[in-house]
Amino acid sequence: MSFNSFGHSFRFTTWGESHGPAIGAVVDGVPPLIPLDEAQVQARLNRRRPGQSRFTTQRQEPDQIKILSGVFEGRTTGTSIGMVIENTDQRSRDYGEILDRYRPGHADYTYQAKYGTRDYRGGGRSSARETAMRVAAGAVAEAVLSSVLGPACQVRGALVAMGGDAVDRSAWDWNQVDANPFFCPDAAAAERWAVTLDAARKAGSSLGAVIEVVADGIPAGLGEPIYGKLDSDLAAALMSINAVKGVEIGDGFAAAAMRGEDAHDRMYPGNGPTPRFETNHAGGVLGGISSGQPVVARFAVKPTSSLLIPQPSVKVTGEAVEVRTKGRHDPCVGIRAVPVGEAMMAIVLADHLLRNRGQVGEIRR
Amino acid sequence: MSFNSFGHSFRFTTWGESHGPAIGAVVDGVPPLIPLDEAQVQARLNRRRPGQSRFTTQRQEPDQIKILSGVFEGRTTGTSIGMVIENTDQRSRDYGEILDRYRPGHADYTYQAKYGTRDYRGGGRSSARETAMRVAAGAVAEAVLSSVLGPACQVRGALVAMGGDAVDRSAWDWNQVDANPFFCPDAAAAERWAVTLDAARKAGSSLGAVIEVVADGIPAGLGEPIYGKLDSDLAAALMSINAVKGVEIGDGFAAAAMRGEDAHDRMYPGNGPTPRFETNHAGGVLGGISSGQPVVARFAVKPTSSLLIPQPSVKVTGEAVEVRTKGRHDPCVGIRAVPVGEAMMAIVLADHLLRNRGQVGEIRR
Amino acid sequence: MSFNSFGHSFRFTTWGESHGPAIGAVVDGVPPLIPLDEAQVQARLNRRRPGQSRFTTQRQEPDQIKILSGVFEGRTTGTSIGMVIENTDQRSRDYGEILDRYRPGHADYTYQAKYGTRDYRGGGRSSARETAMRVAAGAVAEAVLSSVLGPACQVRGALVAMGGDAVDRSAWDWNQVDANPFFCPDAAAAERWAVTLDAARKAGSSLGAVIEVVADGIPAGLGEPIYGKLDSDLAAALMSINAVKGVEIGDGFAAAAMRGEDAHDRMYPGNGPTPRFETNHAGGVLGGISSGQPVVARFAVKPTSSLLIPQPSVKVTGEAVEVRTKGRHDPCVGIRAVPVGEAMMAIVLADHLLRNRGQVGEIRR
Amino acid sequence: MSFNSFGHSFRFTTWGESHGPAIGAVVDGVPPLIPLDEAQVQARLNRRRPGQSRFTTQRQEPDQIKILSGVFEGRTTGTSIGMVIENTDQRSRDYGEILDRYRPGHADYTYQAKYGTRDYRGGGRSSARETAMRVAAGAVAEAVLSSVLGPACQVRGALVAMGGDAVDRSAWDWNQVDANPFFCPDAAAAERWAVTLDAARKAGSSLGAVIEVVADGIPAGLGEPIYGKLDSDLAAALMSINAVKGVEIGDGFAAAAMRGEDAHDRMYPGNGPTPRFETNHAGGVLGGISSGQPVVARFAVKPTSSLLIPQPSVKVTGEAVEVRTKGRHDPCVGIRAVPVGEAMMAIVLADHLLRNRGQVGEIRR
Repeated sequence: MSFNSFGHSFRFTTWGESHGPAIGAVVDGVPPLIPLDEAQVQARLNRRRPGQSRFTTQRQEPDQIKILSGVFEGRTTGTSIGMVIENTDQRSRDYGEILDRYRPGHADYTYQAKYGTRDYRGGGRSSARETAMRVAAGAVAEAVLSSVLGPACQVRGALVAMGGDAVDRSAWDWNQVDANPFFCPDAAAAERWAVTLDAARKAGSSLGAVIEVVADGIPAGLGEPIYGKLDSDLAAALMSINAVKGVEIGDGFAAAAMRGEDAHDRMYPGNGPTPRFETNHAGGVLGGISSGQPVVARFAVKPTSSLLIPQPSVKVTGEAVEVRTKGRHDPCVGIRAVPVGEAMMAIVLADHLLRNRGQVGEIRR
Repeated sequence: MSFNSFGHSFRFTTWGESHGPAIGAVVDGVPPLIPLDEAQVQARLNRRRPGQSRFTTQRQEPDQIKILSGVFEGRTTGTSIGMVIENTDQRSRDYGEILDRYRPGHADYTYQAKYGTRDYRGGGRSSARETAMRVAAGAVAEAVLSSVLGPACQVRGALVAMGGDAVDRSAWDWNQVDANPFFCPDAAAAERWAVTLDAARKAGSSLGAVIEVVADGIPAGLGEPIYGKLDSDLAAALMSINAVKGVEIGDGFAAAAMRGEDAHDRMYPGNGPTPRFETNHAGGVLGGISSGQPVVARFAVKPTSSLLIPQPSVKVTGEAVEVRTKGRHDPCVGIRAVPVGEAMMAIVLADHLLRNRGQVGEIRR
Repeated sequence: MSFNSFGHSFRFTTWGESHGPAIGAVVDGVPPLIPLDEAQVQARLNRRRPGQSRFTTQRQEPDQIKILSGVFEGRTTGTSIGMVIENTDQRSRDYGEILDRYRPGHADYTYQAKYGTRDYRGGGRSSARETAMRVAAGAVAEAVLSSVLGPACQVRGALVAMGGDAVDRSAWDWNQVDANPFFCPDAAAAERWAVTLDAARKAGSSLGAVIEVVADGIPAGLGEPIYGKLDSDLAAALMSINAVKGVEIGDGFAAAAMRGEDAHDRMYPGNGPTPRFETNHAGGVLGGISSGQPVVARFAVKPTSSLLIPQPSVKVTGEAVEVRTKGRHDPCVGIRAVPVGEAMMAIVLADHLLRNRGQVGEIRR
Repeated sequence: MSFNSFGHSFRFTTWGESHGPAIGAVVDGVPPLIPLDEAQVQARLNRRRPGQSRFTTQRQEPDQIKILSGVFEGRTTGTSIGMVIENTDQRSRDYGEILDRYRPGHADYTYQAKYGTRDYRGGGRSSARETAMRVAAGAVAEAVLSSVLGPACQVRGALVAMGGDAVDRSAWDWNQVDANPFFCPDAAAAERWAVTLDAARKAGSSLGAVIEVVADGIPAGLGEPIYGKLDSDLAAALMSINAVKGVEIGDGFAAAAMRGEDAHDRMYPGNGPTPRFETNHAGGVLGGISSGQPVVARFAVKPTSSLLIPQPSVKVTGEAVEVRTKGRHDPCVGIRAVPVGEAMMAIVLADHLLRNRGQVGEIRR
C-alpha cells in the first residue's frame, strides 16, 4: 500500500494536518555516512515557506525543521530519519465556516465520502501544508544524489507559464529563477505575471501554472522496466502534488502531434560507447530508463480552489449553500509548487539510484 | 520494488520477450468466486491483436490466452492466476540488423547502458508486445469491477487525436469506436485519419496520438491520499505504457490556463448527501479520491520510433551508422494503445476498489 | 523494502534512537471513525515501561505518548497517525566506555560492519527502547481489532519460562499475569523466578525467557497464502523483536516429534458449517490461514547481552579488550518483551483483518 | 501485499495448483549477466523430486523446468524470468473422496472458510507441490550469490531429527547428506530412521522432522533493521513452507535456558577490523544483521496430515465423517523440505545481498 509513503529503496512517510500541533516525515533507506544537518534541510524549506511575498499566502509559518533521529555527528547512520515541524500559526477560526460545507474543487467532499469524517480545519490532511515535508525529504534525497553522483548532479525547477501566459524559452536564465517571486526564468514574463496575479488576487480569483523540473548530471541506466519506469514514477510523484492535473516528460503532449522522423533524438558518436544525442525530445528517458541526457518533466497546477468569489455548493447535510473562503490563500498555488516539484524529482532519482545500485551494482561515473 | 509488477491489492506481474517462446502474467489478490474464463480474456485481447487492418503491424499473432491456475469450475479461487500466450510468429531474422546498433527513440541504448546486455530480437522485453499481458490482466480487473460494482461500471477508451488532428467532441459517439480501425469516436475524423496515416505509412514515417479513457459507474471514495492517490496511480499506470510522454486527468494542462472561478466544478444538492456536480473539470478525482463522477484520463503517445526513413545513429561499438527498421511495425502505435489504456485504467480502479474495501469496508452502492 | 516499517494494510514505521531527543511512530492504513485517545495508548505503554520493579532496568522513562495527527475529535480520520515520545532520562555518560568496543551478543559490531558507523549511545537504533513504539502501534491495532471484531477479540501474553524453569500449565491463571512483576500465569513459578532472577542480577549475569501470546476471538479466514501466511507474518513479527532467537506456532518444535495421528486436530460437527476442533495443536493456523481457534505463538528471548561480568571482546580498532556494561539493564529482557509480543501479534492480526477484508469482503462475525 | 510473492530486491511469484495443467514462477530483480540455464535449475529440482525412494510419495513427476524469459544467450538480462513446469501425473481420481470433507491438520477447511471455495484436487494451491517453484527460484538465488560472493558462499541443509530421534552432532558429515534418502548428515541416524519410517508408513502413520540450513561465506552486513532483519525474513521464509510449525536461529529456544555469560559469542582479534568469534550461539545474526559467521537456521515440520489411519472429521455440509487419505503421500514431508529450506535461505540471502548493495554499496569481499 502507498498511503502516506513514497518510494522503495529511498522511502519517506509523512504525517500531520494543516492545523494540528505538528507535521512530520520519516525518511528511510538513506545510505550511511552522508553529511546532513538541519541547515541544509531548512534552506530548502525556506524556498517554499509561505508569506515571503504578496503573491503567496500571508500565513506566517517559520517552518523550523528538527531532525530527531538517523543523523549522528553530522552524518547519516543508515537508520530512519525522523523530522518534525511544529505548526505555530494555525488561526483555525478562519476556517470555522467550512466546517459544514464543501468547497468546490477541493478535497472536502471526497474525504467525507471516503472516510465518513474529515478534519475540516484548513483542509486537515488534504492541505498543501503537507508538501513542506516533501521538501524536507527532498533535501535528504539531494544529499544522497550529491554524495553518490557528485556536484554535477543538480535538480532545478521553474515556473514556465502562469494563467496561460508562457515564458519565452529563448530568454531562459536560471539565474532569474531566484531573482523574482515566481521562480520564473524569464524576467519579462515575471513582470507581466506580477500585474496579472495582482489583478486576479484583488478580484478574489486565482490562476493556474505550469512548472518545469530539470535534472542534470543523471547517468544513463536509472529506471526499472516495466512498472517501475523512471518516467512512470516521476508521473506518480508529480501527479501526487496538490492541484496537479497533468504531467509531461520531454516533449510531452506536443510529441503526439509530431512525425516520427522529427520526434526522436538522433544519435551520433560521443565519448566511447556513450552516444551524443542531437536533441532531447525524450526528456532524458527511453523505455523507462534514463539516457544520460537531462531528465525533463513538466506539470500543470490548476488554479487555487479556495476563492473569495462565492461559489455555489452544498452543505454536509445536502442543502445548497454559497462558499467563499476567507482564509489566507495563495492566489497561485503553482508558485510554491516549484520547490515541491524539485523535491519530488530528487526523491524519485535518489530512489532509482539506489534501486539500480541494488540490482546492477555501482554506477561508473 | 516495482520491476515487472503493478498494483497492491490487485497486483499483476508480467514476463516474456517479443521473440521468446511465450509471454505471461500472474494476477494476484483477485477476490474468490468471480466468474472468469478464457473467452472473456480473449475477447479483450482480440481488440488489441495486431494484423487486423492495414493501420497496424502485419505481424500475425493469434494471441491465444491460456489460463493455467487460479480459476476452478469457472470461478476464481482467490489464488494466483497464471496466464500464458505462446509466441508463434517471431520472424527474428527481420531484426538481425539492429543487433549491433541503437534505434533513435527506442530503448535499445538505455537497456544496454543499464544492463550491459539486451535481447535485441524485436526489442526483447522493451517491445510493446508486453502490453498484451496488460490487456489480459485488465480483463480480470474488469471482472472484479463488474462483480463488485455491477454493470454500471464501465471503462472505455477512444483515440481523440492523431498526428495533431483532434476529434470534434460535439460529434462524440461511443458506438463509432468499434466501427473504424482507429477506435475513433468521431466518424469524420476517422475518415481523415485513414488518409493521413496511409500517407505517413507509405512515406516510411509514423504519427503520434492522444487517447482518452473514461470510467463510468465508479463510486466516490476510491484513492489513498497522499501517495496512493487515484490520479497519481493512474498517471503511473498510463505513463508506463510504451511510447507515452504525457498524462492528464480531467482538464489537464488546460486547467493551468483557467481562472479559479471557471476551473472548479460547482456543486448542487443531489440525491441525499451526494451532490450533483455541474461540470467535470476535475475528471472525477478531488484530493486524489474519486468523486463519483466519471474518471477521465488522457495520454499522449509519441510516433512509432521504428521507421523506414533512415536515421543517423551509432553502433554498440560507438561508430556512426544509419538505422532503418525493416520489421513490420505499427505506423501509429497509439491505435493499439487504446485497449491497453482501458486495461490499465481498469487495473488501477480494481486495485483501489479492494484497497478501499480493506481500509474502509464495503462500498455502499 | 521493509527497513523500519512493518505491515501492509495496517502499517507502521518507527524512528528514534535510545539516547536521541525522541522516538516516534507513524501508523498508517487505520480505518476511520475508530475511537482512539492518548490514554488508551498510554495504558499499554505503562505495562512495558522500565523502572517498575527491581527486575527491570532502573532507567526512569515516563514514556509519555503524544498523538500528533490522524485523530480528530476522539476518532481516527483514516490518515496517518503520528506519535512521539520524548526521551527524558538519557544519562549517556553511562555508555561512554562502549564507544570504542563491541559488546558480545550485541548489535554493536554488525551495525558498524554494515553502516561503517553507529550511534553508540545506549545502542542507538538497536536498543530495545524502539519497542516502546511497537507497543504504541499495537494499541492502535487493538483498537482496530475491537472495532471490527468486537470485545470477544483479545490478545494476551505471558512469560512461560525463565532461565529454563517453565510454568505449570495446569496452574495457568490469566489473572495472575498482572499480579506479579513477570507477567507469569503461574503464581508458584513467579515466586521461584523472583529468587532466581535476584541471584542472577546480583551475580552480574542475566537470564533468558519464553513468552507465549494467545489471541482469542479471531475468525477463520485470516492469512494470505502462500507468502503472506498468517503464521509466516507472525514469525517475522516476533523474530524482529530484540534478542528473539526462536518462534513457534501451536505445538511448534514438539510437533516434529509426534506421530501423524496425534499431531492433528480432529474435527467434529459444530455450529453450522463451523467445525469443532478437539485440540489446538495447530495453534489456530492451517495452511497459513486462521481456523477460528485461538491463535497461539511462542518466542524465545536470549539472556540480556549487557552484563556486569566482564567478557572478552575487541575494540573498533581490532585490539583485544574486556567489556563490562555498567549501564542500567534488564537482567531478563524477556519480561518486558511480553507487552511487545502482544503488540506484534495484534499488529499482524489487524493487518490481516484488513487485508482479508480487501480481498474477500466483510467478515461475517 | 505478499500473496504469492516473496522478497523485495530479489523477488519471486508463484502460481499453479497441484492438479492443474502446470505450475510456474516469475523471478524478478535478478542482476544482469549472471550465467543461468535450465540444467542448473533442474539439478536443484531433482533433489526435491518425488518418487526417488520408498520414503517419499510415489507420485511420478519429472518436474522438467522450462525457462521462458529473462535469459538470453546463457546469461540473465535483468528482466523477469518466467519458468514453468507442466504437471504430468495428476491422477485426480485419487482425491475424489476428499471433495466434500476436510482432512484434519490440512488447509482444506481454512481455504473453504476464507474463500468460500477451494480446488479440492490434491489440495490445489495448498499442496506442497508449490514448493517445486521455490526450489527453482532458489536455484536462481544461488546463481546470484555465487556471482556476487564467489564460490565460498554455499547454502546447505540437512535433516537433524526425525520422529524425535536426533542426529549425533559429533558425527556430522556433510558428505553423508547426499548418500542416504533422508539428507541425513549422520550415517547411523539414517539407518535408524529407515527402520522407524518404514514402520510408520506401513502403519498408515507419518513422522515429523527438524531441518537445519547453514549458509557459509556470507559477509557481515546483510539485514535491514528494524523490520527487515535478516533473521526476521528467514523466519518468515521458513515458516511459509508447508507444515512448518517452528523456526530457530542459532541456539534458538535453547538460548532461553542459558545464562548471559554462556549465551553470547566472545570476540577476539581477527583479521584487521574483523573479529574472530569463539562460538556461534547467535547463528550468524546480531541485531538482525549478519556477523560474517555461518548463518544457521532450523525449522520443525509436523507429521504429514494425509494419513491412511482414519481420522474423525466433518463434511463441507457439517456432518460427521471419517477421513482416510488414499492418495500417494510422503510419510515424512520433512525429507523433501530440505531442498526447499535451502532454497528459501538462498532466496533470503540473495534478496538481502541486493538490498544491502542498494543502500550501502558494493560489499568488499
